[in-house]
Amino acid sequence: MKKEFFVIDYSAISEEDAAKDVHNDQLCFKLNHTMPHTPEYKALVQELFGEFGEGSKIMPMINVVRGREVKIGRNCSILNNVLFMAAGGITIGDGAMIAANAQLITNNHDEHKRWLLTCAPIEIKRNAWVGAGATILPGVTVGENAIVAAGAVVTKDVAANTVVGGVPAKFIKDIK
Amino acid sequence: MKKEFFVIDYSAISEEDAAKDVHNDQLCFKLNHTMPHTPEYKALVQELFGEFGEGSKIMPMINVVRGREVKIGRNCSILNNVLFMAAGGITIGDGAMIAANAQLITNNHDEHKRWLLTCAPIEIKRNAWVGAGATILPGVTVGENAIVAAGAVVTKDVAANTVVGGVPAKFIKDIK
Amino acid sequence: MKKEFFVIDYSAISEEDAAKDVHNDQLCFKLNHTMPHTPEYKALVQELFGEFGEGSKIMPMINVVRGREVKIGRNCSILNNVLFMAAGGITIGDGAMIAANAQLITNNHDEHKRWLLTCAPIEIKRNAWVGAGATILPGVTVGENAIVAAGAVVTKDVAANTVVGGVPAKFIKDIK
Repeated sequence: MKKEFFVIDYSAISEEDAAKDVHNDQLCFKLNHTMPHTPEYKALVQELFGEFGEGSKIMPMINVVRGREVKIGRNCSILNNVLFMAAGGITIGDGAMIAANAQLITNNHDEHKRWLLTCAPIEIKRNAWVGAGATILPGVTVGENAIVAAGAVVTKDVAANTVVGGVPAKFIKDIK
Repeated sequence: MKKEFFVIDYSAISEEDAAKDVHNDQLCFKLNHTMPHTPEYKALVQELFGEFGEGSKIMPMINVVRGREVKIGRNCSILNNVLFMAAGGITIGDGAMIAANAQLITNNHDEHKRWLLTCAPIEIKRNAWVGAGATILPGVTVGENAIVAAGAVVTKDVAANTVVGGVPAKFIKDIK
Repeated sequence: MKKEFFVIDYSAISEEDAAKDVHNDQLCFKLNHTMPHTPEYKALVQELFGEFGEGSKIMPMINVVRGREVKIGRNCSILNNVLFMAAGGITIGDGAMIAANAQLITNNHDEHKRWLLTCAPIEIKRNAWVGAGATILPGVTVGENAIVAAGAVVTKDVAANTVVGGVPAKFIKDIK
């Protein structure tokens, strides 16, 4: 189902929100300069994201805007260099796998007033697998156990237990 | 209009130019290991690029070859992990937005003599918006206010006030 | 010729192999935080990869899983931010060029049992050129002197002396 878009007006952003964005950027930088598989790294991951479930792992470099809007479930595997543009909210279900270089993008710019961010949430459901370098656009839900092929650009919802691929992504087959 | 290509012969590169390339790489590394939103970071950005206008921002990781050939206008927003292969020259107009993981590529290799770089400039005009992970190829101009969709590969000029997308990128619609 | 796939069962991975994966990740991190064009950087590159031939260069950030399964020939040029998912084995021939952001992926997950990695080797033959952001999938051989266009997703073998491009990649022309 198509999600509602909401708007963030960056021409009128509060000092408090601007400071939060800077804090997010600097925390992200700090994480990307901390040795992975250490307690310090794990603590920074918990601080950067809104939720990061038990048994999940994420590899650097991590590129995140508004990391507190990202909720990651348990036993997820998120590989190198994934992009989270999270102003619209990102939810990743238990056991999901996000391959390297994937792009999760929850905001566009208004076509005319580019300072308006038009945002809608992304949901990656349980056990879904997003392939390397794939792009998920605002408002998209990737269903349970679905597979998004490497390099796909996903513009609309992906049904559970299906495989999609291509630019823009199209149905390839059912997982039976 | 199709730009003229020029050739750089890497089999005959001068010691001076080779040293400049190494300096560029090391400056780029240093920038990527400096905390963003600090005076040190901003000073390195000014050193890395040929021009970097007032009010513009750029996020790490920054991947740049021949950064002195890049001219960035005022109030531009350039997000994480953008690639600048700049031997052919890159000009980015005021207010342009370059999303994360975009690739601005001004050089190819000759099909037969791979040590010959065939170069042509890229221009991103005022207020254009290049989407996440999009690729702009040598000689391409993206017109004022145009939008390049996420994941597009742009092989020819994009008219002002239009939206293009896909691999290779095709006209999608006018911005009215 | 289609390669045979083999399976790695991550639900039954030995402590020794798990420790090797952590060591790989931490070595990769260390390399990405070492100044390029220095003896320290070059020593870490030799340690990370199974083979790294004389006269070859590689730029950070380097994203590698199971780097010891990667064999890189002589006089190769590998640019920024290339991804090596190497569980299935990667061989890169002398003089090959891998552009920035390329993805060399030798493993998928089983569609049903996601903890099973299904692996097949990638071969990039002598003097081939893989374009920026291109993706090479498990089992693919890119022939001698072939060119993979920027942003392509290569799902099957590429004949020597040909150019391919698109998602999925298709034959574009012969190099004569």
